[in-house]
Amino acid sequence: MQTLYTARYVITQNDARDLLEQGAVLTEGDRIVAVGPAAALSAAAPDAARVDLGDAAILPGLINGHTHVAMSFVRGRGDDKTLMAWLNEDIFPAEAKLTPAQQAVGCRLSLAELLRTGCTAIYDMYMRQDVLAEVADAMGIRAVLGESLTRFHPSMGGTSLEDILAKTRARMERTRDRPLLRHAIAPHAVYTTDPEVLTRCRAFADETGALFYMHMCETKDEEAQCLRETGKKPLPYCRDLGILRADTSLAHCVHLDDEDIAILRDIGAIPVHNPASNMKLASGAAPLRALRDAGIPVALGTDGPASNNQQNLFREMWLAALLAKFSSGEPASMTAQQTLDLATRNGAAALHNPDIGSLEPGKQADFCALDLTALSFQPVSRDTLLSHIVYAASGLENRLTVVAGEVLYRDGGFTRFDERELLREARVTLQPTGC
Amino acid sequence: MQTLYTARYVITQNDARDLLEQGAVLTEGDRIVAVGPAAALSAAAPDAARVDLGDAAILPGLINGHTHVAMSFVRGRGDDKTLMAWLNEDIFPAEAKLTPAQQAVGCRLSLAELLRTGCTAIYDMYMRQDVLAEVADAMGIRAVLGESLTRFHPSMGGTSLEDILAKTRARMERTRDRPLLRHAIAPHAVYTTDPEVLTRCRAFADETGALFYMHMCETKDEEAQCLRETGKKPLPYCRDLGILRADTSLAHCVHLDDEDIAILRDIGAIPVHNPASNMKLASGAAPLRALRDAGIPVALGTDGPASNNQQNLFREMWLAALLAKFSSGEPASMTAQQTLDLATRNGAAALHNPDIGSLEPGKQADFCALDLTALSFQPVSRDTLLSHIVYAASGLENRLTVVAGEVLYRDGGFTRFDERELLREARVTLQPTGC
Repeated sequence: MQTLYTARYVITQNDARDLLEQGAVLTEGDRIVAVGPAAALSAAAPDAARVDLGDAAILPGLINGHTHVAMSFVRGRGDDKTLMAWLNEDIFPAEAKLTPAQQAVGCRLSLAELLRTGCTAIYDMYMRQDVLAEVADAMGIRAVLGESLTRFHPSMGGTSLEDILAKTRARMERTRDRPLLRHAIAPHAVYTTDPEVLTRCRAFADETGALFYMHMCETKDEEAQCLRETGKKPLPYCRDLGILRADTSLAHCVHLDDEDIAILRDIGAIPVHNPASNMKLASGAAPLRALRDAGIPVALGTDGPASNNQQNLFREMWLAALLAKFSSGEPASMTAQQTLDLATRNGAAALHNPDIGSLEPGKQADFCALDLTALSFQPVSRDTLLSHIVYAASGLENRLTVVAGEVLYRDGGFTRFDERELLREARVTLQPTGC
Repeated sequence: MQTLYTARYVITQNDARDLLEQGAVLTEGDRIVAVGPAAALSAAAPDAARVDLGDAAILPGLINGHTHVAMSFVRGRGDDKTLMAWLNEDIFPAEAKLTPAQQAVGCRLSLAELLRTGCTAIYDMYMRQDVLAEVADAMGIRAVLGESLTRFHPSMGGTSLEDILAKTRARMERTRDRPLLRHAIAPHAVYTTDPEVLTRCRAFADETGALFYMHMCETKDEEAQCLRETGKKPLPYCRDLGILRADTSLAHCVHLDDEDIAILRDIGAIPVHNPASNMKLASGAAPLRALRDAGIPVALGTDGPASNNQQNLFREMWLAALLAKFSSGEPASMTAQQTLDLATRNGAAALHNPDIGSLEPGKQADFCALDLTALSFQPVSRDTLLSHIVYAASGLENRLTVVAGEVLYRDGGFTRFDERELLREARVTLQPTGC
């Protein structure tokens, strides 16, 4: 069964960055069969089901390279504090009381927000990812589940390091028939782990094929503590432990010097930029220009709803572009096209998934579609389209979210769940407990 | 005829910052009669018409302290350039061809966006403000019309300085019976004027009661040029010309030293912060903490749609909070409450209008109401409400916009115009001309 999606524009994000007017995407099952002019594809596929989006732009589904979706349960708690105060006074105590049922509702809320705003794939880091595995599978979004580990045991994730690794391995086995779910082992950060945790996680990744994921170089405090305790900055410390590989993605990468950038480039690890979280916590600004100049694809993440506080990659793109210009002092240092690349092609690199990130035949049918009749997009033309997507979109202009060929959101309604029921569930599950 | 608006929360923004649960706002004509508990006001006003907003938060209408609403006609043109290159290569040539009809459509688009996202009052700077006077009056928004002047004549605004001043005076006369319209004379900036323009504008303001409005201290280039040409920085230069008074509002105020801040404080001039524009053009970050410490109320502006590119004070609040934290290195340097103050109470100061900016008996009935069932607001409680408004709102959660007691937007529809007709007009008027 084929489906032909047509729209005023199709933004392919292929190598040539082709932008089609009166374009179409033809899908079959979970794949894209063809991308081209609407008239030609329509003639070539007379039996395909038709979805004409009219005055809209189809673009690759946005990819969220770093989040903690469960954390909507603490949205709006403890704003306006430093990272460490916020973690110790607000987040860790709240997490200590979090039940799996509450965690599941937190995940559902964030995934609904993300699907609503055109996100089709996430790279998530949290504890007890069995919860997200079930929720993501039920909601149909593509996800890499990064199981977070620290040196503190027992934790939410398990009684010991070995217990958590065993659970992760069992989850990988159990979900082998779920093509949208992939897995990562995610030692939280250098300041919350030790060499034993880090090297055991690396061995686990090598042995099982799980991806490897960490927070890295987020704050100056992290750098100072690592220097004090190990005599090295975080990236050289991790490199010397032998834990970084091309399977590695690293959230934040704010405080990087030339040696750090060379390490990332030589290893092929992918940094994930989180401008909202980094600004809100006053952590700093990742050196996007230097990373791009080094040929390193930088992905984009919202970070969790506790530190952002909206799960929406359109406003994250806007902020990424503004922060790059502001922090470099060069208004030309990041264009709309380069910004869209962060959330699409580079996101695919961070998820280590070459089948997503652009609209091309043979790739996964993951895309979204913006309503171009929104007031903030007027006037719209081929020349201003990318500018509007990055600088004028709120994300709520999205009309359609398709993952692996399945429509998950369209024109105000989710297909797999009822939004009102989710809101009711959130009220009942999260609030009375003070969670 | 009275109307009673009730909602789960009413955010008064009064001096005590009272936040009412199950609150109400009672209006009569263009005024607020009472603000208080829903049950009590309902009993006290049995004959009032009822508007129950349910799970929503009523808050003062947001005030846009700086914009150029006409400029949606160049939205998305010439992004990613420095201020001067963008002005000279993109904006000035486009403005040279702009017809009054096109200018009117540009104004309509921006005002629709602003009303849609809960803005009830603007301070606008542009040329030929007869156009905006008519459009703002027709659309029902509150506006201060700042007629922009430079040393370059003839211009869009008129054949000479005296011609533009005469037109402004005539407009003030003609609109005396329009309480929502106020007037300002707005010499563009130090780098586009000369002492004659500046002192003539000051004399005009003193004589007519028009407010006084300028761009000020926006870029380092502006400062360097002013130092080179006058031996002074922009604020001391203007102070020494005797043109600054308590009737003065100054857009940007990015590059301020201690002497500049003392000048603003001593004179009582109000700075208007435009974080999106300042970041996009890499102009810098206004010193919000130092201004607040000096007791100066800072207002918030979107700047025009050419440099922002969305007219939406909710996302501007979010950005203002993030930029203040990031640029000061202190996550606690601006709270959600302080951020909301920028766009409400301080906006009233910038518009020199004590009748707006908070919900209190006797004040103008200008307010908006956010739908609290939005996914990004979950879970919501009294404790997290302000956080959600600043950090999690997109602005499109707004359900209601009331100006001077009149409902201008409600639940997807504008009351005074048809949105589809406006979009059609924009397509016909702006695009074929290449404008």
